Formats: sequence, structure tokens, C-alpha cells
Amino acid sequence: MGNYVIVSSDCHAGPPADRYREYMDPQYRDRYDEFLAGLAAMTDERAAHVNNAQQMFREKFLAKTGDGGNQASWDPDLRERELDHDGIAGEVIFPDADVLGIGGVTSTPFGTGLGASGLDDPDLAMAGARAHNRWLADLCAASPDRRGGVATVPIIHDVAAGVAEIERAHDSGVWAGIMIPTQWSPHPSYNDPVYDPVWATCQERGLAVTVHSGGSPRDIVVGPGTLPIYSTEAWFFAARPLWSLIWGGVFERFPDLTFSVTEDGAWWVPGLLARMDEQWEGFHATLKFGTIFRETLPEKPSSYYERNCFVATGMNDHELARRDEIGVDQIAWGNDFPHPEGTWPHTRDWLRIKFHDIAEDETRKMLGLNALRCFKNFDAAKLDAVAQRIGPSPAEIHDQPVPPNPDLALAGEGTH
Amino acid sequence: MGNYVIVSSDCHAGPPADRYREYMDPQYRDRYDEFLAGLAAMTDERAAHVNNAQQMFREKFLAKTGDGGNQASWDPDLRERELDHDGIAGEVIFPDADVLGIGGVTSTPFGTGLGASGLDDPDLAMAGARAHNRWLADLCAASPDRRGGVATVPIIHDVAAGVAEIERAHDSGVWAGIMIPTQWSPHPSYNDPVYDPVWATCQERGLAVTVHSGGSPRDIVVGPGTLPIYSTEAWFFAARPLWSLIWGGVFERFPDLTFSVTEDGAWWVPGLLARMDEQWEGFHATLKFGTIFRETLPEKPSSYYERNCFVATGMNDHELARRDEIGVDQIAWGNDFPHPEGTWPHTRDWLRIKFHDIAEDETRKMLGLNALRCFKNFDAAKLDAVAQRIGPSPAEIHDQPVPPNPDLALAGEGTH
Repeated sequence: MGNYVIVSSDCHAGPPADRYREYMDPQYRDRYDEFLAGLAAMTDERAAHVNNAQQMFREKFLAKTGDGGNQASWDPDLRERELDHDGIAGEVIFPDADVLGIGGVTSTPFGTGLGASGLDDPDLAMAGARAHNRWLADLCAASPDRRGGVATVPIIHDVAAGVAEIERAHDSGVWAGIMIPTQWSPHPSYNDPVYDPVWATCQERGLAVTVHSGGSPRDIVVGPGTLPIYSTEAWFFAARPLWSLIWGGVFERFPDLTFSVTEDGAWWVPGLLARMDEQWEGFHATLKFGTIFRETLPEKPSSYYERNCFVATGMNDHELARRDEIGVDQIAWGNDFPHPEGTWPHTRDWLRIKFHDIAEDETRKMLGLNALRCFKNFDAAKLDAVAQRIGPSPAEIHDQPVPPNPDLALAGEGTH
Repeated sequence: MGNYVIVSSDCHAGPPADRYREYMDPQYRDRYDEFLAGLAAMTDERAAHVNNAQQMFREKFLAKTGDGGNQASWDPDLRERELDHDGIAGEVIFPDADVLGIGGVTSTPFGTGLGASGLDDPDLAMAGARAHNRWLADLCAASPDRRGGVATVPIIHDVAAGVAEIERAHDSGVWAGIMIPTQWSPHPSYNDPVYDPVWATCQERGLAVTVHSGGSPRDIVVGPGTLPIYSTEAWFFAARPLWSLIWGGVFERFPDLTFSVTEDGAWWVPGLLARMDEQWEGFHATLKFGTIFRETLPEKPSSYYERNCFVATGMNDHELARRDEIGVDQIAWGNDFPHPEGTWPHTRDWLRIKFHDIAEDETRKMLGLNALRCFKNFDAAKLDAVAQRIGPSPAEIHDQPVPPNPDLALAGEGTH
């Protein structure tokens, strides 16, 4: 078996926002210049509201990483070196790297990245997605075996146009999967069969469908507690498509489709699935609904979760302790590179801290094998060859003394 | 100590919809007649889509209860007899009893009950609320020590009008608390200090603020899985005000205010509070935000939960097993009378099944004492007198053989 074949199912990449201009369809470039001006103003506005503890964190993160990961967000060679250093053989690449915008300014054109929403302008949303996907194809082409790009595709505005962009992006070398918006309203939710052409295309091409946390309805006022409330709720708004797809029967109609809920934690999985199964099985409180929970599902909801779904997350201690309930076969570890809440550039230390006392077979699944089942277009043999060169050995993870928390120094005064 | 003083923190009452007419401000009666016509059409529409298993359930529920609880929803004397029979000394009364509308047709005027939303017409919402609250005052007046009415108050449209209705309803004898909408958008969320006059009035008068499950955004299309998706999500949309109030600092500003999340389960409480505390304490993934989680809260979120908040729920087995994590001091049992998913008319059997192996002091808290802390205007001495007459003794709950599930017979073919 040799070294661990590590795949991070949650990485981010993106260039400085103005570099998207050349990837943009010409007719949208004027609008993009306006967008850039607005982005700059928003960045200045946020910079003016950084508190002392945030500023201290930024300085320490910069000191730790050099430029805070910005250049590795787009520079193909530097990115390769950083992944080598961290022992990561393959990565699944989402948009909105935007590291120095700590606190929320994302830079995917026209906001079509993690915060994509049904309220976006349909034409601009698709133009922005195409620009990002074209840029991403170039980045991935520089290391095609290791870089699994996730195409940003706002399928909600126009399903046929979405399918066309999925095919175009895949044909251009973005082969890991697609990311769909977590905020679909006022368009149909994902249980609607109107999206079947999307699922069919992804199933046929081995592309995973993914969601990533970030979006939320804008119904919490700016005032006391706004960010903490968002932070408490974000997992739910990213995870909603999971049960919409399951209850909608999508995995019954597309049994080979895979789906990943990215950077969304996993603490909620066991309880939520247990409630779903309970409803499907029928119990006192749901009997009044009759057979309605079984109409779309021949099997219980957790069966589809176990067959088709993955949670791509960094795995906190409390989640690793419950890994049997969350699913040792469903957990696809991700390190959120290059975001500051991830493990870069201390991934090897973090892996030793988190996985040192977990059996090798379980570790192999969570750190890589599950990702290969979710993102089917990875070439396992090629990744294995990389891993034998750069990846940590089981002995490195399990047999050495557990290192101290490498990021404790990031905790500045005022945060504890 | 004697018999258990049992308070159900989740009951429902309401008359046939046309009886609200006389309680309606005269200028809204024409509009109410239109509303009634629409309600009748919707009821017919739903009746046409009842499946066989639902029909079988309804027939068995009717056979079990006589008229399915309808008359007990509004008849003062019958209601008293049914509560006596079930051993319940006091009750907290929400709207939308509407038992035969199994599956979702509620009948509070202009839909201002459990499904109240920011999209409702402001004038009609308040007119409907006033009509229900007036009717409720009459019901409660017939048994004022045992019936703790919860006034339906759509505070979101006009805060001052909301405060006026809270005061009017309380002065008229609706003394347990108020129910606020769980769907506030496009109005401000509850972390906004604009609602401080509401919290101040409730704190001063000893009225609990409550939310009850039922509402949800209308962003799931009608199609495969619609009801199961709703059923999976409903807890979240009802619970959102809990963390909006905590993070918004409301319990810091109003330390004697009590808040109850009603009929919303409790499985999610430990995980969610642990995440909130984790964010407040600061850990690797939130350091980038600096001190923002502490700006509004001198104490960690779970401190406010333990001091000010309650979960009013029927307590499934899996929740009772985790009662220490959910909070033996926070659980206020409710039986959802007269809804078919509740325990009526077999509450005494259910209590023996669920609580037989739980210590008496914990049972006393969950079945009544916590409710008295949440709904402060109950007179404990008067309830105790009732309980000594009708309530189960500890010996009845803990020392007798556990009975068979009294509602197994409701599970018809096709549901198992």
C-alpha cells in the first residue's frame, strides 16, 4: 500500500479578479469593469471595519504563509509546490480562493461562486461562471492528473444552458464535478425533475455534483450577532440540496450519480439521517401522512446517503469521534487550501494530530479513497505514483509523537 | 410531593373557522368571508388528494377519539374532561387545533397562526390575530387557572401595534405568553433591537415568548418529496429565532425573559449549542473573524440557553436518552393535544412508556416544573391542587408494568 494517497476534496483557486477579464465573453467586459469597481469599494469598506483581533490574525497568517496563500491561489507552479509540501496528491478545486478577503469578499465574476443565488442576473451569472471555468481549465491543464476542477454552474436560471456549460467545461478539462447554487429561490428546488438533464449529464460523464457552504438567504439584518447567526446557520443552507435530492428520488433515478456537501461540517449528519429514516419507516408522529414518505423512495433515505453521498470536510475532533455514525465510507477529508481556516501549510502536522490513533484502513478511506469514489475521473494509479513521492507514510501519521497544535500561535490576544 | 403536576407546554385550541367571524373587527368581516370561501376550497382540494393510508389513519383516529378531537378544540367543558382524563393539570394553548385538516389546512383567521409570515398582509394579519386572541380569552376564562393562553402576535409588521396587542391580550386574560412568526422576511430578524419593546413588555409581564413549528419558506417546489423535505427542515425554520435572540444579545439585555421552541424536537440542540459555544470560545476555523463572536455576548451562548430558553416537545426515546445534553432543566414536555401526532387520549400510557425508568426529580422537572419556570404566570399552588385530584402518582408512572404502545393500532397497512 505504501504512502497515503491523500486527496483534498475541498480546495480553492482563483486569480486576482481583474485577470478574469480576458476569460470573459467580450460582450460582458464592460459590465465586468463595473463589477470590479464595486468589488474594490466593498473591499475598502470591509478593510475599514477590521477589528484588532482580525488584524492580528491576518498579520500572523501572512507571517506564517508568506503572502497568505494568494499567489498559490493562481500560480500553477507555486500551487504544486505547496501541495507537495503538505503531502497532498490530488485536489478538488472550488472557486473563491480570495484569501486576503478574510471575512467574506469573494471574487468570482459577478458573484457566481460560493454565494451564487437565484436572485443573480441570469446572463451575468452564466457569463461569470464561464469565465471562471475557462480560467480553471487553464490552471488544471498545468497539472491535469492532480487537479480536479469543479465547474461553477448556475443551473437554476436555464437548465439547458447549464447542461451546455457542464459539457463545455468538462470537454475543456474541468473533470471533477460541478458546483450548483445553494440558494435557488425563486427557481425550482432540486427535487424538481426539471433538473434531470443535469443529473443525467453528470452521471454519464462521471462528474460529481457538489454544493459548498457560503450562501445564505439575506434575511438576517445587519446588527447585533449578524455574523455569528450566519455562522450558526451556514451548514443548513448549504446542506439543503442533500435532502432535496434524496427525497426527490434523484438517486433512485440516477443510481450512479455522486454528490458531495463541501466544507459544511458533519455533526448534523447522524441526527438528520436518523430523523429522515424514522419518517420513512413511519412512526407515531408521521402516521397521519400515510405513505407519502415512501412514494418517491423504495429504500430508506440513509441508503441513498450511503450509496451516493459524501461529506467533504476537515473533520473536527468531535466529528472524528462520531465517524462511524457519519459514515467512514462517506467522509472525504478536505483541507480548504489556501483558506486560513484550513490546515495549510501545516497539513502533515494536523493529520498526525487528528488521525494518529485511527486505524490505517479507515484513514485511507477518509483521506483519499472516498474522494476517488465521489470524484470518479481521478486516475487512482497516477495519484498513487505522486503519493509515493510526496505523501506521508502510515508510520509518519501513526507512529510518531503527536506534534503540538501548529496554529496555536495564530490565536492572538482578544480571541481567548 | 404527591401526584405529578403535569403541564403540557404544547396544546392547541381553535373553533370552526366561521366562529371567528363574531370576534373579528367589523371592518374585516367581508374579507373574512372571502377567506372562508378560499379555506373551504382548499379543504376540498386536499380531501381529494388523501391517499389510502391517510384515510385509514383518519378513520382509526376518529374511532379512537370519537370526533377526532374537534369538539374538544373549542368546547370548554369537553376540553376540561379530556385533560382530566389524561392527567394534565395545566396547558399552554397555541392556535390551529384543526384536527380533521390532517395534513396541513390550518384555520386561524387569515393564516396568522403557525404559518404566519412576513408576506402576510399587515392589516389582515393583525385583525386575524386579534380575532383569535379574543376567542382564546373566552376559552381560557372558563378555566383560568389551568389554561395558559398564548396570544398570536405578528410583531414583525408593526412593532408598536404588536406591543399594543400583547398588552390588550394579556389584560383580557391570555396570560401565558405570545407566539411570534417564524417567517419574518422581508421584515427585520429578531436580533434587531427594533423588537426590544416587545421583549421588554413580555419580560415585565412575565409572558414567555414562543415559536412553534409549522412555517417554512415556500421555496420547495410541489413535486417529488415536497412534504418529506418540509418535514426534514421544519425544525430548523422554527428554531432560527432561538439563535437569533441569543446571538443578538436579547437575553443579555432582558435577563428575565423566557423563550420556548415548541413542537420542534430536541435532537439538534446539543450539537448546535456546542458549535455556538465553540465559535464563541474561538477555535482554528473562526479565528479569522477576531472577537466578533463575543461582541454581543459576555457569556457563552449555552449560558443563555440554560438561563432563558426551553424546548417544549413530546420527547422521543432518542431525545430522552440524551436529556442530560438537551438539558433536564430546559425540557418542557408537551403532548400536542388534540393533534393526532400527540399522545391524547392515551397520555397516561405514554407517560408510563416514556418515563417509567427516569428518576422522579427529573420527571417532575420535565413534566411540569420547567413549564412553570418558562410560563411564569401559572399559579403553581392552584395547579398542584388540580394535580392531586387528576394527576398520575409517581407510583403509577414508575412502579407499574410498562403498557403496550397504545397507538400501534393506528399504524395501518401501507405504513409499515
